[in-house]
Amino acid sequence: MRVHGKAYRTIWVAADSKAVEIIDQTLLPHQFAAVRLTTPEDAAHAIRAMQVRGAPLIGATAACGMCLAALADNSDEALDQAYDVLLASRPTAVNLRWALDLMRAHLRNRPRGERVAAAYQRAAQICDDDAAMNSAIGEHGLVLLRELAAKKKADESVNVLTHCNAGWLATVDWGTALAPIYKAHDAGMPIHVWVDETRPRNQGMSLTAWELGQMGVKHTVIVDNAGGHLMQRGLVDAVIVGTDRTTARGDVANKIGTYLKALAAKDNGVPFYVALPSPSIDWRIEDGMAIPIEERDGAELSRIKGRAADGRIIEVDIAPAGSAMANYGFDVTPAHLVTALVTERGVCAASRAGLRALFPEASAPRHA
Amino acid sequence: MRVHGKAYRTIWVAADSKAVEIIDQTLLPHQFAAVRLTTPEDAAHAIRAMQVRGAPLIGATAACGMCLAALADNSDEALDQAYDVLLASRPTAVNLRWALDLMRAHLRNRPRGERVAAAYQRAAQICDDDAAMNSAIGEHGLVLLRELAAKKKADESVNVLTHCNAGWLATVDWGTALAPIYKAHDAGMPIHVWVDETRPRNQGMSLTAWELGQMGVKHTVIVDNAGGHLMQRGLVDAVIVGTDRTTARGDVANKIGTYLKALAAKDNGVPFYVALPSPSIDWRIEDGMAIPIEERDGAELSRIKGRAADGRIIEVDIAPAGSAMANYGFDVTPAHLVTALVTERGVCAASRAGLRALFPEASAPRHA
Repeated sequence: MRVHGKAYRTIWVAADSKAVEIIDQTLLPHQFAAVRLTTPEDAAHAIRAMQVRGAPLIGATAACGMCLAALADNSDEALDQAYDVLLASRPTAVNLRWALDLMRAHLRNRPRGERVAAAYQRAAQICDDDAAMNSAIGEHGLVLLRELAAKKKADESVNVLTHCNAGWLATVDWGTALAPIYKAHDAGMPIHVWVDETRPRNQGMSLTAWELGQMGVKHTVIVDNAGGHLMQRGLVDAVIVGTDRTTARGDVANKIGTYLKALAAKDNGVPFYVALPSPSIDWRIEDGMAIPIEERDGAELSRIKGRAADGRIIEVDIAPAGSAMANYGFDVTPAHLVTALVTERGVCAASRAGLRALFPEASAPRHA
Repeated sequence: MRVHGKAYRTIWVAADSKAVEIIDQTLLPHQFAAVRLTTPEDAAHAIRAMQVRGAPLIGATAACGMCLAALADNSDEALDQAYDVLLASRPTAVNLRWALDLMRAHLRNRPRGERVAAAYQRAAQICDDDAAMNSAIGEHGLVLLRELAAKKKADESVNVLTHCNAGWLATVDWGTALAPIYKAHDAGMPIHVWVDETRPRNQGMSLTAWELGQMGVKHTVIVDNAGGHLMQRGLVDAVIVGTDRTTARGDVANKIGTYLKALAAKDNGVPFYVALPSPSIDWRIEDGMAIPIEERDGAELSRIKGRAADGRIIEVDIAPAGSAMANYGFDVTPAHLVTALVTERGVCAASRAGLRALFPEASAPRHA
C-alpha cells in the first residue's frame, strides 16, 4: 500500500538486519513514523501498547519478535521465554498463538547455528503469506461488491460500512475487510466507505479514514451510533468487518460494537460480511461466547489524544472526576447474523459446514 | 436536584427579573457555571449551541425566550418574530413547538400591558408542570425497577443502561429516563447505571455521569459500542432512555444510537423502556421515519473538548486531514422494539392503543 505515494508494508526488516521496523500506529493520523524493535520485549510492548494492532499484524509482529529473540540468544530456553512473553501481550487474537506456534515448530530441533536465518525466513514467509491471503480475500470480496454494483446506476457509489480498522494497517498488506474495497477502487468501481470512528481507541477515525485517504478512496467518518440510522434509510449496501477470532461454527469476535452493527444489518436486510484469513479461525472453539474478552484500562475512554490549536499532539481528559469507566475490547457476533465469511479460499456460509467445505483439512484441531 | 449539595433547577428567573439563567451545559463536566439570557436571540442561541438540550428543557427555554421577547417589546409583531426565531433553533424536539404554541396562545389577544406578567406566569407554569410530570414518570418507572429488584438478591444492584442524557439536566428537574433511578436511589434500592458516553457530543460522559455523581448514584461509563456485549453477558437488567419525539403509534426518535441499543435489548430479552412526558408525543405523526432528523456540523465528531494536563479546558482535533464527517443527531426506534412507554400518567404499550388509553383527549391533533 502507499503512504504519501510511497509503497509500504506495516512491518519490515531494518536495513542492518538487526531489528524489525513498524509504523507506530498510536501516532496516526497526526504523525507517520517508524519504530525500531530490537528485542522480543520490544515486540511484545508494540503489541501491548497497540503500536501494532489487528490480528494478522499482531501475528506477524510476534513472529518477528521470535527472530529478535533468536538474534540475541538462540537457545531453546530463550526462545521458550520469548514465546511466553509474546503470547501474553494480547489475549484475544488467535493469530498470535498461531504465528508463535509456527515459529517454534520451525526452530525447535534445529541446529542453533541455523536458527537466526531460519527464523527470519519463516517470519518473512508468514508476512508474505498474510499479504497473499489478504489479496485473495480482496478478490473474493470484489465479486460480492460487483453484485451490489450491478444493482446500481453506473456512476452510483456502492456504500460499504466498516467498523474499526481491518485495513492494511491491521495486516502486513492489503487488509482484510478493506481488501475488497481497494480491489474495487483499483478496478474503477465507484465506492464510498462509511467509517465507524470506533471508540474508545478510534481506530476508524485515526487509521481507517487515514489509510483510505492515502489510497484516494472516498469515505465519510461517522460515530459508532450512526450505522443503524444509515441502514434504516437505505444508505448502506453492505457491512464488511474483520475479526480477531472466528470459531469453527462461524461466531465472530471482533472490535466492541460489531455485534450492534450486525443486528442493524439483519434488521434492515443489509448483507453483513466478515473478511478473514484462515489463521484467525479458532477450530478448537464452537461457541463464540467462550472466547475470552479483553478488558482494558478505563483511561482509554476518558483520555483522548488529538492536535491542539498550536499543532501539538496532546491528551485531554473528558470524564467527570470520580466516575468509573469500563472498557471491553471485543464482542461476539453470533454466526446467524453473518451473511457470509470471505476467506482467502473463497466465500462461505458462517457455519461449521460452510467453513469445513473450504477448509476440509481443519477437521482435527490445529493447535493440538 | 443538587449540585455540590445545593438545590438547583436547570433554568430560573434571575434575581432582578430582567433575565433568565441557565446552566451552561457545554462546560460540564469540567466547569459548573450559569449563563444569563436577556433576549429571545440569547435563548435561541442557548438552544442552538446546546448550552441547554433535552426536549423538555428546550421547551422550557423557548417559553422563557418568549418572556424575554415580551420584556423588550410586547407587540404581536415582536412576539411572532421571537416565536419564529426560537422555533428554528432545533428541528427535532417537538416540545419546542408545543411550548411556543402554549406561550403564543396565552399572550395573544391579551392587553399589551399584561403580557410580561402573563408570559412569566405561563413559562413558570410550563417549568413547574415539567418538574411535576418528571416526578410522576419517576414514580411510575420506580414500579418497573421494583419488579426487577424483586428478582435479585437483597444487596444486588439493579443494572440500568441509559443512552445520552435524559436526566435532570435535560429537563427542568428530575429528568425523564433518570427520574425512576433517582426515585429508586432515594428509596434505598441498590442501583447501578451503565452510562453510554454518547458520541459525538458525549452527553452521557459529560452530563449523565456528572449528574449521577452529584446525586451519589453508582455508575460506570462505557463506550456506545459496549451495550450489546453487556446485554449478551446478562449485565443489564433494563434499558431506559428518553425521547425527543414519540409518534402517535409509539415510534421513538431519540439520540443517534438509541435504535442500536433497542435491537440489542430485543435480541437479549432485556426490557427497553422509554420515559417521556406527554408534550414530547407528536400526535400528528404515526410513522417515526417521517420525523426529520437533524444533521449537525461534522466538526462535532472531529473536535473534542477536555481538560489538558495543565488544567486548561481545550479542544483537540482527532481527525485525519481531508476526511469527510457526517453527523446525524437522532435515529428512530420502531415501536415494536419498545417494551413500554413510561409517561406521567403511567406505563403503557408503545402503540396507538396504549397511548390512547392513557391520553384519550389526544384523539384530535394537538397542534391543529
